[in-house]
Amino acid sequence: MSVLVVGSVALDSVETPFGKHDNLLGGSATYFSISASYFTDVKLVAVVGTDFPNRHIELLQRRGINTKGLQIEKGKTFHWKGRYEFDMNVAKTISTELNVFETFKPKIPSQWRKAENIFLANINPDLQQNVLKQASSPKFVACDSMNFWIENKRSSLAKLLKNIHLFLANDSEARELSGETNLLKAAKYILKLGPKMVIIKKGEHGCLLVTKKNFFSVPGFPLEDICDPTGAGDTFAGGVMGYLSESGSIDEASVKKAIIFGSVMASYNVEAFSLDRLLQLNRKLIDKRYREFKELVRF
Amino acid sequence: MSVLVVGSVALDSVETPFGKHDNLLGGSATYFSISASYFTDVKLVAVVGTDFPNRHIELLQRRGINTKGLQIEKGKTFHWKGRYEFDMNVAKTISTELNVFETFKPKIPSQWRKAENIFLANINPDLQQNVLKQASSPKFVACDSMNFWIENKRSSLAKLLKNIHLFLANDSEARELSGETNLLKAAKYILKLGPKMVIIKKGEHGCLLVTKKNFFSVPGFPLEDICDPTGAGDTFAGGVMGYLSESGSIDEASVKKAIIFGSVMASYNVEAFSLDRLLQLNRKLIDKRYREFKELVRF
Repeated sequence: MSVLVVGSVALDSVETPFGKHDNLLGGSATYFSISASYFTDVKLVAVVGTDFPNRHIELLQRRGINTKGLQIEKGKTFHWKGRYEFDMNVAKTISTELNVFETFKPKIPSQWRKAENIFLANINPDLQQNVLKQASSPKFVACDSMNFWIENKRSSLAKLLKNIHLFLANDSEARELSGETNLLKAAKYILKLGPKMVIIKKGEHGCLLVTKKNFFSVPGFPLEDICDPTGAGDTFAGGVMGYLSESGSIDEASVKKAIIFGSVMASYNVEAFSLDRLLQLNRKLIDKRYREFKELVRF
Repeated sequence: MSVLVVGSVALDSVETPFGKHDNLLGGSATYFSISASYFTDVKLVAVVGTDFPNRHIELLQRRGINTKGLQIEKGKTFHWKGRYEFDMNVAKTISTELNVFETFKPKIPSQWRKAENIFLANINPDLQQNVLKQASSPKFVACDSMNFWIENKRSSLAKLLKNIHLFLANDSEARELSGETNLLKAAKYILKLGPKMVIIKKGEHGCLLVTKKNFFSVPGFPLEDICDPTGAGDTFAGGVMGYLSESGSIDEASVKKAIIFGSVMASYNVEAFSLDRLLQLNRKLIDKRYREFKELVRF
């Protein structure tokens, strides 16, 4: 099986206490795709400008990612500029130049309409809904959002969530969407909007899966050196959806394993700038840290 | 086996979003003792004033706690007044009236000098050291401290840590003591000061055990209603030391189990004001939540 992702491909300028780099390959769909590519075939739907370096497209293709859905439009690529302070938990956005991403109309290539596993990365929920309409037989759809859409497109997001199996949110998004400070209450509120499962991402503190019947908690992997947290959430989602697409199963045991694989990928990702660490991985290293996670919580 | 604890017995005035109560039974040694009493015999060394209600002493004794070491001095009992805002993570101290606690000279009754398991709750590290000198054959000594002593008695604390097996600190204390933001680095710094193990408590995010060779992570137990976090850290320590004293073993597997029991006790404690929830427990309820913890992290 494969996974189809719709989201952003971007060029990032990132500053952390460990360095400063311009025009790094970034974007939600990029992190997701590279991460998921270690588990399954990936179909990428996104847009870049004519300035987007061809070597980045080749890099995606070398990871086996199908870029048939990557539209190249006249203009400049989406550019995000941000900075992390010492605590590394929250990015401070310095500037966001949407460029060609501003008028992005995601279009699933006709051969991909039967895609069953779909990840709708953080874009306008109206567009996420529109993508879903183009899919003829979605079986497992996950989506992400952000505070901006929760504040400005709440009803569109609520409508979308009726058709979503798995909603991923970080703690502040879950709190804002639900109006609840307590994360368990927040997750239960979101479940009532439609999704079968909610994953609340808590940065260095790991994440929490909540379903109607159960919950599951994963600690953050203890790391001494966190270099750049950019893309951790999408890398996590890539591991989750990649593993689920590979396993072909969405029962609770598989979802739990998928969340560990997501956590493994995210923990590797933050060890270097951009996709540098993710691109050096292999299944052996991934399985090694999976076993370390098992050991980390075993008693 | 039994555990000996030295710390405070206090009367607390606590305000949280869920209510406001005056003159509640509190204090580090109280929370520790009640918690540990579900696992093992507890010997309490502390001080109260002549105003301390006799019913509180009877309550401790009904839990089987030996109060021979509870000194009653002329004057008023230690009184802490604090408030928690909605996020419930940090207590705001409104006032601290040390009263008889100010001149507390902990004295281990002569029959207890052979105590092997000792918990030094948060008091002046010079006093903690003095207590340790009174013990003839300490085998497993744990201690807690606070930012105030880290700032004002750093060298005394460093000296004490040479003789400690397990140091418990919350995240901000570990950061302040080590000068490291990263908690894993902070724990490794503290290990170099002497303790064989460090537990870093992260409030609702659970805790992290770090030893020279290994680490172990426990998530917070997901709770919808947290009523009053007062005493959670000492209740946790009571579960840890209570279980270890009961089991008579301090190998890594036992310490991990002990940490889960500590987490179980702390998660119950925050469900009600003062010791209200802790006092209603029994071993069946404790074992039930232990199994829920196991399920919470199992994959």
